[in-house]
Amino acid sequence: MQPFNRTITALSTPPGKGGVALIRLSGEDALAIAERVFRAKNGKPVAELPARYATYGDVYLENEPIDDVLLTVFRAPNSYTGEDTVEIASHGGVLITEAILTALYAAGATPASPGEFTRRAYAAGKLSLSEAEAIGELLDAKSMAQVKLFGGDSRARLSGELASLYEGVRALLSSLCARLDYPDEDLGELSSDEILDAIASTKKRCEALLATYKTGKAVAEGVPTVLLGKPNTGKSSLYNLLVGRDAAIVTDLAGTTRDVLETTVPLGRVLLRLSDTAGVRESDDPVERIGVNRAKEAAKNASLVLVLLDASQPADEEDMALLSFLDTLEGEKIALLNKSDLSPMQFDATLLEGHVARVLPFSAKDGDLSTLSGLVDRIFTDGDIRLGEDAVLFSARSHAALKLGYERLSAAEEALRTGYAIDAALTELEGALSAFAETDGRSVSEDVVAGIFSKFCVGK
Amino acid sequence: MQPFNRTITALSTPPGKGGVALIRLSGEDALAIAERVFRAKNGKPVAELPARYATYGDVYLENEPIDDVLLTVFRAPNSYTGEDTVEIASHGGVLITEAILTALYAAGATPASPGEFTRRAYAAGKLSLSEAEAIGELLDAKSMAQVKLFGGDSRARLSGELASLYEGVRALLSSLCARLDYPDEDLGELSSDEILDAIASTKKRCEALLATYKTGKAVAEGVPTVLLGKPNTGKSSLYNLLVGRDAAIVTDLAGTTRDVLETTVPLGRVLLRLSDTAGVRESDDPVERIGVNRAKEAAKNASLVLVLLDASQPADEEDMALLSFLDTLEGEKIALLNKSDLSPMQFDATLLEGHVARVLPFSAKDGDLSTLSGLVDRIFTDGDIRLGEDAVLFSARSHAALKLGYERLSAAEEALRTGYAIDAALTELEGALSAFAETDGRSVSEDVVAGIFSKFCVGK
Repeated sequence: MQPFNRTITALSTPPGKGGVALIRLSGEDALAIAERVFRAKNGKPVAELPARYATYGDVYLENEPIDDVLLTVFRAPNSYTGEDTVEIASHGGVLITEAILTALYAAGATPASPGEFTRRAYAAGKLSLSEAEAIGELLDAKSMAQVKLFGGDSRARLSGELASLYEGVRALLSSLCARLDYPDEDLGELSSDEILDAIASTKKRCEALLATYKTGKAVAEGVPTVLLGKPNTGKSSLYNLLVGRDAAIVTDLAGTTRDVLETTVPLGRVLLRLSDTAGVRESDDPVERIGVNRAKEAAKNASLVLVLLDASQPADEEDMALLSFLDTLEGEKIALLNKSDLSPMQFDATLLEGHVARVLPFSAKDGDLSTLSGLVDRIFTDGDIRLGEDAVLFSARSHAALKLGYERLSAAEEALRTGYAIDAALTELEGALSAFAETDGRSVSEDVVAGIFSKFCVGK
Repeated sequence: MQPFNRTITALSTPPGKGGVALIRLSGEDALAIAERVFRAKNGKPVAELPARYATYGDVYLENEPIDDVLLTVFRAPNSYTGEDTVEIASHGGVLITEAILTALYAAGATPASPGEFTRRAYAAGKLSLSEAEAIGELLDAKSMAQVKLFGGDSRARLSGELASLYEGVRALLSSLCARLDYPDEDLGELSSDEILDAIASTKKRCEALLATYKTGKAVAEGVPTVLLGKPNTGKSSLYNLLVGRDAAIVTDLAGTTRDVLETTVPLGRVLLRLSDTAGVRESDDPVERIGVNRAKEAAKNASLVLVLLDASQPADEEDMALLSFLDTLEGEKIALLNKSDLSPMQFDATLLEGHVARVLPFSAKDGDLSTLSGLVDRIFTDGDIRLGEDAVLFSARSHAALKLGYERLSAAEEALRTGYAIDAALTELEGALSAFAETDGRSVSEDVVAGIFSKFCVGK
């Protein structure tokens, strides 16, 4: 861990012009450093200010007042970081906040690194690693479903459930150790059957939590999605419909494994990671062929393939080739019979049988995505889960650790059931305990912790 | 004035990703609206929360918790706006703040217009118009001198001095009215001599404040500046030196009256408004000639002309032409004998006599601007003025009103001194009073107020 004896400071609000800016100061010298730069209008020294109370006064740089601010003291351990913390709400603006930070540096504070406030909160036990992960994601939330998942009660519920699973296994392990150390004494500890029951019930809770990952993953990480279709089937219209509904939450990300641009766009609760690919058709044009190959490659890696078909035209050879190509794909497939508003339907929908099971009439022209959105939600999320309220597993890291813990629990159960392998059961339970410890960061490597906080911005 | 019965809300911190965001809510329903979206962890209703105390709790949107926040209540009149105000410190991020604002709108708040919080503060008498002007400038401060001028005690001192001048004239006026209404009674009011003394002393304070405008203007509005010089005299080096010292505070502004780009750059306490012009020399190239003409035009309008000369070369015809051109300019001129580090000096400095009085040896290569900076400060500011502490007049609007008030005071003095024109004196004093009332916004037109607040950002 990095040294926590320094008192850190940073601008915690986004940089730039604004009405108000908030500068945070945390560490054992926070109050002393604030005292050096701040004079309350009521004349009280910072050390005597009541906690959590906004006090009006001036910030000084080189003995000259530079801004009138509201200063609030949070005393350890009742602060975000768990340390003594001072928050300074100043006028917003680039130079004024720089000037206040300059004054704080001169008074002994050091600049905070990205995520350092939250990291200290984690180190002080104010929040678990899964909560820190959620807060990091919240700042970048790309959909309202993500806001609920990361910002609502789900965050604390998940953390609580992970901690409770860990505690459950820890209790089991000490019971078993006691039986092993004093096999002949009546310690009032659990019998083998009771231990088996306890393992079974812990496993059940594990299963329930693991089952939420499908939803958490679709909301948090998103579903790699590709639009396929001949030219002029409405692929671009659907793309624009999906992306254009709320341009503010569209982000362009360079694909990590392929050279294809990805746009994230919420559809219902699911975040689609939309690959921006060319249309799929045989072509003599070499440049277009490259685009088509990329689209095919993206389709192979996609979890969701949306196939656009023109309902107003009979199927042709290209359509049939596309349907055959669908058979090679592993992702979920939805066929959209576009231009379904133009009657009569010319496309023979029975041709789709055996290639794609889910078929929706569609009209890019009327722009209604609700049926598609409902279907995608049903495929990728569990409708019983209330985002923002229930515990929902959303990170691949926690999911992997929890799954490993579950497997070790199963192995321990098996060893105990055979009746003669109590040492083996003990080893498996120890393995389960350390796996559970990783889910909420009790025994996670420094690299993992650093990786999680590196995604934070400075000032958080 | 616009209606103030609405309760307004806005994001008061800059938009974008950050650790913390601050949303402000102000108006008579602020507490009731906050109650509809917030549940304190301690279970207390918002109306019962202690003032200025940061209370932890959750914000709800459509009955689902979306973020845990710190909420602080400021009760009227002890708030920035003078109204009931609620500040919500949430996690920073685009969607999370949008979601909280959506909840507040649904609960009855309306979006604040730019500067509306400060405008309400002004309407409630929490700050004067000159203070509001300073706050607007502070958010955009382009130099540390501006931070001190707009953010330090100068703001309140100026406002206090303007208010005191107004009160002084008001008192004079009522004394004079009393003498006029009851000329024969002994009202214990001031004698003519005493009134003349009072006018003289008010005028003296006016003069002192008017004298600070030179400094305030140089710091706040800046000094239109042009660099002149033949090619290869170091003009570009000086430009880069001036601009490059702190790239963060460099701004490009489209020239308002000319088609020349302006870069603002602080030098000492002065803000230079640097025209980015081509070198001045006779040229056959038509494009270069346009540039040269623009430079000459800019030089005519400049308040400061920095002339670069090559000390390592004897003066040539072009230099002599440039010196003649200087005679046509009205701005302050400083000649910089560049390459003074290369000895011996080849340029005959006596040639400058009669053309430019201020001559500095200079070396763009060693990059030391301190001598130039000190000289510019001495020319354009009053060294006795302590920025951030003294009252300093900085806005053209206040300066014009104060000057008019001063002239009306002088006219009143003259009328009284002649002894027989007390009616005329009264009229002049009334004129002076209404001029002083404009300096701090007591009787200023709605257009002027709207113009001042239109420069603010939303959320201030």
